[in-house]
Parts: sequence; C-alpha cells; structure tokens
Amino acid sequence: MATHPAQPQTPAPGDSYVQSFARGLQVIRSFSANAPHQTLSEVAAGSGLTRAGARRILLTLQTLGYVVTDGKLFTLTPRILDLGFAYLSSMPIWNRAEPVMEALVQQVQESCSAAVLDATDIVYVLRVPTKKIMHINLGVGSRLPAYCTSLGRLLLADLDDDEVRARLEASNIEALTKHTLTDIDALMAKVAQARKQQWCLVNQELEEGLISVAAPVVDRQGRMVAALNISGQANRTSAKAMQETMLPALREAADRVSRML
Amino acid sequence: MATHPAQPQTPAPGDSYVQSFARGLQVIRSFSANAPHQTLSEVAAGSGLTRAGARRILLTLQTLGYVVTDGKLFTLTPRILDLGFAYLSSMPIWNRAEPVMEALVQQVQESCSAAVLDATDIVYVLRVPTKKIMHINLGVGSRLPAYCTSLGRLLLADLDDDEVRARLEASNIEALTKHTLTDIDALMAKVAQARKQQWCLVNQELEEGLISVAAPVVDRQGRMVAALNISGQANRTSAKAMQETMLPALREAADRVSRML
Repeated sequence: MATHPAQPQTPAPGDSYVQSFARGLQVIRSFSANAPHQTLSEVAAGSGLTRAGARRILLTLQTLGYVVTDGKLFTLTPRILDLGFAYLSSMPIWNRAEPVMEALVQQVQESCSAAVLDATDIVYVLRVPTKKIMHINLGVGSRLPAYCTSLGRLLLADLDDDEVRARLEASNIEALTKHTLTDIDALMAKVAQARKQQWCLVNQELEEGLISVAAPVVDRQGRMVAALNISGQANRTSAKAMQETMLPALREAADRVSRML
Repeated sequence: MATHPAQPQTPAPGDSYVQSFARGLQVIRSFSANAPHQTLSEVAAGSGLTRAGARRILLTLQTLGYVVTDGKLFTLTPRILDLGFAYLSSMPIWNRAEPVMEALVQQVQESCSAAVLDATDIVYVLRVPTKKIMHINLGVGSRLPAYCTSLGRLLLADLDDDEVRARLEASNIEALTKHTLTDIDALMAKVAQARKQQWCLVNQELEEGLISVAAPVVDRQGRMVAALNISGQANRTSAKAMQETMLPALREAADRVSRML
C-alpha cells in the first residue's frame, strides 16, 4: 500500500554538491523488498551508476559495515538503521509520546499513528497498533500520499494555500477507491476545512473500509510539527461514531503530546 | 540505556574507498537526541570535517531533501528514514512475523522483540510492547551490547568460537549490574550453553529487575538470521517461571517465524 518514495533530485555537480555522496545514498535506496540481495550489475542499474562507480560505493559501504557480500550478492546490514535512528533519536518527543498514544489505543481500541510531512507524502514516525486481528501494517519510515489521508490533509493545512496547491499539483493523484477526491480544488477545500477545525477525517479515500481521523501536534511557536491519527474499519465504526466518540480522546492525546514539546 | 553505535572505521582513501561518501554518512550520524539541530561548525566538529567539507555535505543533503535549515541551524528530515527503510523493507519477513509476535505478547503478557547481530551489538528490528505500565522503550534501530543480553548471547552462538571470542574481546564489557558476567571465559561458556540448548536466558545482567529469554529464528540453510525474546520484570515473573511458562511459547513463535523464511 505504501507508495515508493520520490526519487531524489539529481542536479548537476557543482562546488556545493557532492555527487559521489548523492550517488552513495542512491545505492542504499536501490535495495528494497523486491531487491534485498543485488549483484554489482543490479546495483549499478538500480542507482544509475556505472559498474565501476557502483563497485566503489559498495566497497565503501562494506568497509563501513553497512553492506555485506558473499562475493557475488550484496545485502544491507542492520547498521543502515543507524542512519534512520539519527533522525528518530533527534526527535526524542516520540519516546514520551508513546505512552500517551498507548493509553489512547487502550481507550478507543483502534490503532494510533504519528506522522510528519515530507514533500507530498506523510512519513510514519510512530505506530501503536491495536491487538485486533485487522490492523494495517505500516511501520516507522513507511509512506503514504498526503492528499488522500487524514494525517496528510491536516499536515498540509499548516502550509499556506499556494504551497498546498503546489504540493497537490506535484502529487500523483489517483482514485484509489470510489470515494477518493481527485480534484485539486475539492482537495484544497478539504485542507481549508481541516485548517479551520484543526482536525481532519478521511472516509475510505485511501482504501475501501478504512476510516481515519487526525489531530495536530503543535509546538510552542504554534507550528504543526506532526499529527496523530486513529484509524479504524468502517464495518466496525462509522465515520460519525469515530468523530463523536474517538475524536475528543484523540484531540486530548494530541494536546498532551503538544504540551511535551 | 542504548549504547552509542560504534563509530565507522575511516581507512585511508584509495581507489575503492569513496571518502566523500563516508564523510557524508558521518554527517548524518552526527545528529542525535543531544544534537537534533546543529550549526555548520557543530556538524563539522561532530563529523571530523572541515567547515568547507561539512558545508558541501549539508548542502547536498539539503538539495536531496534529507536536511532542512533556517539559515543557521540544520535539522534532519524524515526522508532520512528512507535509508533505514531500505534495510527493513529488504527483510519483508518482519511484516509476517509481527502477528506471530503479537499473539505471543497476548499469551504471555510480556514484551516481545526481534533483533539481529551487528558486530558486538544487537540491533532491534521489531518490537511488540505489552500494554503494561513498565516497559522498556527500545525502538527499531536501537542497540544494546550483545554480551549481556539474551538475544546477543544467542546470536553470538551461531558464530564459531574464535569469532565469538573476537567479538567479546572487541566489546566494551562493563558490570552494568551486580549480576553482569564480565569474564570472557565465563561469557564463552554461556554462549556455548545457548548454542547447545538453542535458547538463552539472561537474568538481570543488563539492568536490575530485567529478565529476558531468547529463541532463534533459523533459515532453511540452518543459519540463525535473527532471534526473538520475551523480557519481563523480576518482581512479576521469576527466571524459573519465565523458563517454565514462557519459553515454550516463545520457541513455538520463533519456529513459526522460521518456517516463514
């Protein structure tokens, strides 16, 4: 369900752009669920490098312990997680937010996630699943498009209208279900509504049967730094019930997390 | 509680070592809970680069969307998580293992984690906490030393004895509690015991009051690719009770995950 992250831009090399570094990051990103073990040629093809260039990057990654090889196939090591961990540990708020989110999950018996905005996507930074059988498997670091998610529309609402429109225009908008809004003006109106009411509900626009509602995490300067959501199944909980019974608890949890900032 | 990851090695530049790439990764790793927002000078100091070198790396990261700046302070963006996500998504087993681990947590009412070995550390790849009040907050990507953890000793047991000794000698062994084994021969004996019985229990050697037991996840070639553990509080569950009541369920869960490989 997660969309592929946008490819990084690759501007021309210059005084202030270290192309070999950018290429190295592309090599890391060339590994995926579909390509967990790659030959040198596959890495070169997947990252747009020559074989010689890919080889130097892979050997550097191997020297640093980020890649292992059996001589033919290259595989990432868990040390790669240190790079993402540098980001997560630089946001220590999530350690303290987790108990608040867990208490909310206990109360409403639906999953709770925290996400931030990155260009046209939301990126999950924390996820507390329920113990119910149906739950959506979206780990930390996974992405969804902003335009069709409650977290995304709410996070977009913290930007000014020109920027919202630019992000929507840069999005790959598709009718993922029969409910998905695909018209940019209609989406702008939903974002404006989210901005006004300071919460956002999206009813089965990402996936049939999935409803989610989001509330903002706001820092002392009034900037929305993240959003929390609750997501549930339409056959268990209607959108109306979610708004009436779960939204107040969600907003209270989001306010508690905001006060920790 | 998590230890700092080992600094990457920094060999001399050569034909097959791309120093600017290695330096770039060091810049990413210079961000942390203690240094979430850094000036150019701080990044240079934290990564061992000149100001000019750090500036080029930061501008490259900014161009690629991995860093934002207000003109003075630099901050990582959530896009950094894509790099760690490249590793996690290249191990899709954990998506399928999660429901097995959740069922185990429901059954034993203690937290369950999955980890892999990286040099002298274990690195968490999945964590399913209980909803009890006391739980250890260790997210995906966080590290603990192998020598004093049940996961670590069990994962070491898949290596041959020379390699185990080398890893233990490279470890920063400390008496973290009054129970911590610090003698390398005594630790070798514990690893040998774990190898023989194919599970490992560690009683309050990492932290007072914390007991954990681990079981192996083994692929079709018989290689231990990861380990699962249950960790609990000594004042709730004795080591004997953990071994008698929880270990069988843990081994069954680990076997189920192994069969998915």
